Amino acid sequence: MKILVLNCGSSSIKFQVVDMPGYTIAAKGGIGRIGYEDAEFKFGAGEGKEDLHIVPVKNHEEGIDLILHSLFSKEEGLGLSKEDIGAVGHRVVQGGDRRNVSVVIDEAVIRDIEEIKDLAPLHNPNHLAGIYAVRKLLPEVLQVAVFDNGFHSTLPESAYLYGLPYEYRERYGIRRYGFHGIAFRSMAEGLEKLLGKQFESFRIVNLMLGSGTTANAVSYGRSVEVSTGFTPHEGLIQSTRTGDVDTAAVLYIMRKEGMSVDEADDMINKKSGWKGMSGISNDMREIREAADRGDKRAEATIEAVCHRFRKYVGAYSAILGGTDILAFSGGVGENAWYIREKVCEGLEFMGIELDREKNKALKGEGIISTDSSKVRILVTYANEEKIIAEDTYHLAAEK
Amino acid sequence: MKILVLNCGSSSIKFQVVDMPGYTIAAKGGIGRIGYEDAEFKFGAGEGKEDLHIVPVKNHEEGIDLILHSLFSKEEGLGLSKEDIGAVGHRVVQGGDRRNVSVVIDEAVIRDIEEIKDLAPLHNPNHLAGIYAVRKLLPEVLQVAVFDNGFHSTLPESAYLYGLPYEYRERYGIRRYGFHGIAFRSMAEGLEKLLGKQFESFRIVNLMLGSGTTANAVSYGRSVEVSTGFTPHEGLIQSTRTGDVDTAAVLYIMRKEGMSVDEADDMINKKSGWKGMSGISNDMREIREAADRGDKRAEATIEAVCHRFRKYVGAYSAILGGTDILAFSGGVGENAWYIREKVCEGLEFMGIELDREKNKALKGEGIISTDSSKVRILVTYANEEKIIAEDTYHLAAEK
Repeated sequence: MKILVLNCGSSSIKFQVVDMPGYTIAAKGGIGRIGYEDAEFKFGAGEGKEDLHIVPVKNHEEGIDLILHSLFSKEEGLGLSKEDIGAVGHRVVQGGDRRNVSVVIDEAVIRDIEEIKDLAPLHNPNHLAGIYAVRKLLPEVLQVAVFDNGFHSTLPESAYLYGLPYEYRERYGIRRYGFHGIAFRSMAEGLEKLLGKQFESFRIVNLMLGSGTTANAVSYGRSVEVSTGFTPHEGLIQSTRTGDVDTAAVLYIMRKEGMSVDEADDMINKKSGWKGMSGISNDMREIREAADRGDKRAEATIEAVCHRFRKYVGAYSAILGGTDILAFSGGVGENAWYIREKVCEGLEFMGIELDREKNKALKGEGIISTDSSKVRILVTYANEEKIIAEDTYHLAAEK
Repeated sequence: MKILVLNCGSSSIKFQVVDMPGYTIAAKGGIGRIGYEDAEFKFGAGEGKEDLHIVPVKNHEEGIDLILHSLFSKEEGLGLSKEDIGAVGHRVVQGGDRRNVSVVIDEAVIRDIEEIKDLAPLHNPNHLAGIYAVRKLLPEVLQVAVFDNGFHSTLPESAYLYGLPYEYRERYGIRRYGFHGIAFRSMAEGLEKLLGKQFESFRIVNLMLGSGTTANAVSYGRSVEVSTGFTPHEGLIQSTRTGDVDTAAVLYIMRKEGMSVDEADDMINKKSGWKGMSGISNDMREIREAADRGDKRAEATIEAVCHRFRKYVGAYSAILGGTDILAFSGGVGENAWYIREKVCEGLEFMGIELDREKNKALKGEGIISTDSSKVRILVTYANEEKIIAEDTYHLAAEK
């Protein structure tokens, strides 16, 4: 069965068409700059190179129409027919309290996603646009929602309650939700492969270090803490997000600058983090290059980012009563050996012993702790599309 | 030499008159409800009982005048003369980047405290009111400022930088300052007494658990991390302060409730924490009583508060590369054995082994870890007045 996996962002769509079971990629690509005359459409058959086409794409419906056209076209695409698409799986960032298990999308599910739309204003409306577009263009096809907060629905109350007046918990659902759950499920699969044992056998501190960055504590299969909170803003210093900060400091800046709530939201989500601290880039590679050239702010940014990581590794180990595994993933987690080295510095007292040579030499996935390290440190890929395809396939097969 | 120690709050003054060196209390007390017709004036000679007088007190100057009157009165007070007061020491919450060592107050110091007044709007204006009042009433007497953030001036940049755009660091001095520094210096003295060794020999995680609550990491004499930040709001869940929270959640509430910046500030500083979560009280004893009666929200509050403590113990141990000492102080830290027990739960993997019997039985200061615990756990008093008196005495003696 072919599954179309869709991840609809605010001005982008990423997609894969995969054969299930087995997860063989038939096509993949994406659209960037949706809403512009010069949107960027990338399409590649199989695992091969993606070709770039500059075309006008008004909205998500036009974008999905474009993707389907390429799938169905005999000349330019795969030459599939509508009937070949067995199901469509969507990444949905926020399912709130009510939705955290992958589900076949029906009217009730759509209503729920609509209702909690403003919990994830940057994400859920786009996912809905994608769902509606598929309904229109492929009315017969089963659609599945895979929720990014779902993996964290096992958090205990002590971890998800904020110190805010309780009435806001009741009135608006204010609590820690946590994100990157689909990626963490993928990391769990990856570490099972590397260690030859089920992830339910371990206590794990997961660091998902991409442009969005989340730390996660997993106790024998259950997520028990996560650094992203009510929104993806909280926690680690991210590429453009502040992460943990004295909220009174943000209020102070708002007062001084005459900043509105929306402007403050924009500042802490889009103008902060690696980009705002370094003044250089939201790309860690460029910051690292600047630091190597002696740029003081770039150096300070890397030090502060790694200091924060270390705090989370310590905090989550404490919550787990000790950890068995420290896992890195995401663009930075997979590629930035110097970040991994700095994160592990001084953590020997809790049994975390990095093999510096292995760490520096590693390409791809692997184990980078010393043989004597009590905690196994590893790098594993997170493949969100594969998890979405698997969930979608299982639900479609049940029907 | 007699030293008058003053701690001027927004509507209160706490004072001690002490003989130095040696720190013998000649008188102590305070004024509450300044600004009201029925202000509460407490005065006691020596370490004895304080008598309560209800009197009108318009402002800090009238308050200090009242205190001095009692010190000088032969009938109702100590019968001292102005010349007996060798110096006055003030607790000053915020010295900013510029002021962090205790100093004799001159025009330049006053100017600096004036300039950074809005970094600590709830505190510095009151300290200044106290300084001005003493100038007027005891013009000849030397005054000393002891800064509460001073102890944390050794924080490395990686710990004090926020992930905010750097321009706000430069424009407004936005950084982690940290508070409760005077209390931590007092805890250091206390643990030296308990362990018979200088505090510079140890890595210490300090938990100051009063109605304001701060965690602090000390590496061989230097403060290297602290949970309170730009303001005292950040970090642990405090009696009425939220502590760490997704700032975007606070912005979300502001938007939903049409809340102003000042109202949001008020919410996160005065309506949150133990009080806001439990809906019962800002007093941990009352919350504990409610939990014992089976109140679910009281239970959830205690669990969340202790969960947060454990995260900080883990985080700060990681920053220190392991800790030698875990020290509790403050009203809750000294008295709430059940909080200490919960904080230490599950931390055996990092060498923290609480002796549950000793912990439960302890009255006052003492060591509560097992004999085999790698980390010594202890309870010690924090006496801020004594530290202020000592600094003031040393500076006065140099003159």
